[in-house]
Amino acid sequence: MGLAVGQLGAVNLQDSKASVVKRLVAMMHDAKKRGADFIVFPELAFTTFFPRYWMDNEDEIHQYFESAMPNDVTQPLFDAAAALGVGFYIGYAELTEDNIGYNTAILVNKSGKIVGKYRKIHLPGHADRKESVPFQHLEKKYFSVGDLGFGVFELMDAKFGMCICNDRRWPETYRVMALQSAEIVVLGYNTPSVNIHWNEPVHLRTTTHLISLQANAYQNGLWVAAAAKCGSEDGHHMIGSSAIVAPTGEIVARTLTEEDEVICVQADLSLGELFRQHVFNFSKHRRPEHYKLIVERTGAGNPIN
Amino acid sequence: MGLAVGQLGAVNLQDSKASVVKRLVAMMHDAKKRGADFIVFPELAFTTFFPRYWMDNEDEIHQYFESAMPNDVTQPLFDAAAALGVGFYIGYAELTEDNIGYNTAILVNKSGKIVGKYRKIHLPGHADRKESVPFQHLEKKYFSVGDLGFGVFELMDAKFGMCICNDRRWPETYRVMALQSAEIVVLGYNTPSVNIHWNEPVHLRTTTHLISLQANAYQNGLWVAAAAKCGSEDGHHMIGSSAIVAPTGEIVARTLTEEDEVICVQADLSLGELFRQHVFNFSKHRRPEHYKLIVERTGAGNPIN
Repeated sequence: MGLAVGQLGAVNLQDSKASVVKRLVAMMHDAKKRGADFIVFPELAFTTFFPRYWMDNEDEIHQYFESAMPNDVTQPLFDAAAALGVGFYIGYAELTEDNIGYNTAILVNKSGKIVGKYRKIHLPGHADRKESVPFQHLEKKYFSVGDLGFGVFELMDAKFGMCICNDRRWPETYRVMALQSAEIVVLGYNTPSVNIHWNEPVHLRTTTHLISLQANAYQNGLWVAAAAKCGSEDGHHMIGSSAIVAPTGEIVARTLTEEDEVICVQADLSLGELFRQHVFNFSKHRRPEHYKLIVERTGAGNPIN
Repeated sequence: MGLAVGQLGAVNLQDSKASVVKRLVAMMHDAKKRGADFIVFPELAFTTFFPRYWMDNEDEIHQYFESAMPNDVTQPLFDAAAALGVGFYIGYAELTEDNIGYNTAILVNKSGKIVGKYRKIHLPGHADRKESVPFQHLEKKYFSVGDLGFGVFELMDAKFGMCICNDRRWPETYRVMALQSAEIVVLGYNTPSVNIHWNEPVHLRTTTHLISLQANAYQNGLWVAAAAKCGSEDGHHMIGSSAIVAPTGEIVARTLTEEDEVICVQADLSLGELFRQHVFNFSKHRRPEHYKLIVERTGAGNPIN
């Protein structure tokens, strides 16, 4: 499978959604020329990463959300997918009929049809307004916890799982999808280079991003493709390092810029089988009777022995 | 905490257990001089990695096992711990009164007293005799699956978890211990550099070893210290790269040889708190209602959506 990642550089407050769609379509063309059958775009791709801003006014908030997908503004992306025969993953802020907000991603096939939806489960940040921080991280205010689980969807003879941003740091994310025979996990992210909670060395944001992708790809025998929105959005810097990771745990492609950039590999999905049949042959080696705390506890508690 | 790893070079078939104990005691002295309060020794430390050999005769098999710990041969190690005031972790083949074999590790305090025991849960390899392979990997023949769970033990004002070798590649291992507030996970391993099941590039054995330690240390906000038995045991080569990993996911010490070698760091256990209180604040962010497949399924199955 020709597997591409379309990393987006900064989307500033003043940038229109239509202008972003244009950039996405241009990257889809680029990816197609380089042999891609599928391209992964970022989380909340159509707008700036708005959870960094405190907003009270519902109309102001809702301008960042989509109540239909596709819609007039995003339709050209779906048209391009159908014209080029390229499937894609993209993230956006979804507003339901019941006025519930989700941090959502969709899987679109090469006819431009939506075949899978995921709503982010591991929402980072906080819901309250913090005063002593350089910016907010209000995902817990603007979004509800995803209610669709970690689904796995058949597309182009491959089993796709989806997750979003912070989900990629939680091993449960990948494991639940691997237990449904996922062969590839696709995700988008917006990761500020500054941690507002403690003085985390900036390099760690990239280090921990990459080792999370690598170890979880390996430990589940699947491909992982991750697309950043990055660079400086109105002065707020986010990391790049979009990457495609093989089931060996190795990074086989990585972006070098913090701007719009396409990376593309020929991904041999059968490579994962070597891991799933031997070292990670789940049915031979897993011992769920010893994993119970994973579902019985939410937070950490006392030793049980 | 002064945290050391005592890596063992090869232990050949002809090497006596007493000679190995001497090497372990020498490394404990070295570690003490370098400020260690605790030292991690390898899996099945007292003998060669005997699961590579097919044996039918019970007496022949049992010479690799210990039916008491400590015993006459291993007592000098416990005496040295008490004399130096250094705690340790070590792995050995345990034979119970009921004649059951386990791949076992113990936690010993600085008075030389055993304060915790773990029996390996993720046993790799096979129980049958394979003909077309360069050597056997008979852990499933010689050992039963551990029956003690992934316990967490208080020692030197720190909460220790233990695992063994292949366990380190399974994210469930660390998560179950982190949910019991583990601050440090210690482990030993014997990892052949050749994969008998497929033509795995040799470098991957080390790559996947390290990314597993790194990502799981980070994703659980804990220290990981891992000790190899390595080098060429009667012609059978095993990887080194014993390592100490911080809760940042960074390797802070790593062996350079494939011989007896001590590495030692001053490990700030409170570093993990920064992760456990923010990005990995389990009680705020985990969603066990979406993790159920982890305990409901052993092997991989069909998508549930």
